[in-house]
Amino acid sequence: MTRRILVIGIGAGDPEHLTVAAVRALNETDVVFLVTKTEATEEMRAFRLELCRRFIEPGRTYRVAEVADPERDRTAPAYAQSVEDWRGERIARYEELIAGLDEHETGSFLVWGDPSLYDGTILVLDAVLDRGLVAFESEVIPGVSSVSALAARHRVPLNHAGEAIHITPGRRLASAGLPAGVENVVVMLDSRQAWRDLDDDVDIYWGAFLGTPDEILVSGRLAEVRATIEQHRDQARARKGWMFDTYLLRRRRMP
Amino acid sequence: MTRRILVIGIGAGDPEHLTVAAVRALNETDVVFLVTKTEATEEMRAFRLELCRRFIEPGRTYRVAEVADPERDRTAPAYAQSVEDWRGERIARYEELIAGLDEHETGSFLVWGDPSLYDGTILVLDAVLDRGLVAFESEVIPGVSSVSALAARHRVPLNHAGEAIHITPGRRLASAGLPAGVENVVVMLDSRQAWRDLDDDVDIYWGAFLGTPDEILVSGRLAEVRATIEQHRDQARARKGWMFDTYLLRRRRMP
Repeated sequence: MTRRILVIGIGAGDPEHLTVAAVRALNETDVVFLVTKTEATEEMRAFRLELCRRFIEPGRTYRVAEVADPERDRTAPAYAQSVEDWRGERIARYEELIAGLDEHETGSFLVWGDPSLYDGTILVLDAVLDRGLVAFESEVIPGVSSVSALAARHRVPLNHAGEAIHITPGRRLASAGLPAGVENVVVMLDSRQAWRDLDDDVDIYWGAFLGTPDEILVSGRLAEVRATIEQHRDQARARKGWMFDTYLLRRRRMP
Repeated sequence: MTRRILVIGIGAGDPEHLTVAAVRALNETDVVFLVTKTEATEEMRAFRLELCRRFIEPGRTYRVAEVADPERDRTAPAYAQSVEDWRGERIARYEELIAGLDEHETGSFLVWGDPSLYDGTILVLDAVLDRGLVAFESEVIPGVSSVSALAARHRVPLNHAGEAIHITPGRRLASAGLPAGVENVVVMLDSRQAWRDLDDDVDIYWGAFLGTPDEILVSGRLAEVRATIEQHRDQARARKGWMFDTYLLRRRRMP
């Protein structure tokens, strides 16, 4: 008997993005781990609890264990040390969560989108195993990524036949611009709005709060829709207090 | 009243990758469109029919309309013309399928993985609309991509924090090698086995027939597992008569 940890992709905002495998996994869960972050905490937390209420069968009992994701000191003069401290604290907190399970129990992390894409849970679990203080088996249940959700809502493919797709954090786009020789670029986690400074002749397919009642979609030639996106973004951010957006940039083809 | 076309992502091999939205969409379907291809036809066809049997409620009636994806003449001397002919034929066949629906009916295409990634259905539907002979509304239901399924089965993230991910067809990798400045490269549709000729010091996470009983997973430093993958690949191809594999290449970090 050993503890079992499930890393469940819950899709990108629409509760019906949950897969049949994810619903089954929820119903095998004894403890739902809720990792709360400072930003957007309450809405994300409520969404996960709502998934549990909706998809876990009435007869089943489960516990909820909450843990705050440690805050990262972004002002620290010793940046690398601060990242290491933050990482260590995170590993310790996850370890504690898992140690709280009984030997035969299953604990689940509910990960936004797909657990393989811009999410640290799998690596943190590896680090917990490396420390060797708690033993467990783990399984990853893939989910609908926000990249797939974005393309679906715009009803466009991410690429045309034979083309490549590049997925990049906003930080890289801001510093290096569009990568050469790639027609399709998906940008995630772009708090700097790197698209504002792009001169390239591209179409943009932009989406915020995908799959939720707050969803906003804008598409068109970047030069023509730049102001519209900026306006939507500012208004939504002011209203909700946070922003979660993703976008696809596609180089325009010669007519 | 107008015809409604659903493009449903069915995930990458595991029936339980279907989302709750996909199950709902199947249950709103009057006609399931089965597009059969020459390669791997029978298994893919059987899998889709099995999904219908398993997830469409017993009381509901639906029809199945089959269409053969036109064969592409890859030996034609006029290659560009041959692609155009093939494309036109495909559009005509899809148009005919949709025209076969009654005005108020819903027809669904069941697309492997996620419809936005290396699948032509959305673009063919756009072309059918452009011709203006049949009118319809369409909706895309995103799915678990084979990229997410691959990472989940290997229990690895596609990238580490701050890194980009590049998704490319095998053909491009064979001609241009690993793109510069990208740590993580996912290769799809690689009939040429481009990984065999790579000299780069990378880890490979390789998977074939993901999520199915035939699934094969191999991972390790490319130089060390090259022969193993080749052997597994040849044996499986000989046994099943076809091969569907995907892999992640990750540049090795300095220790």
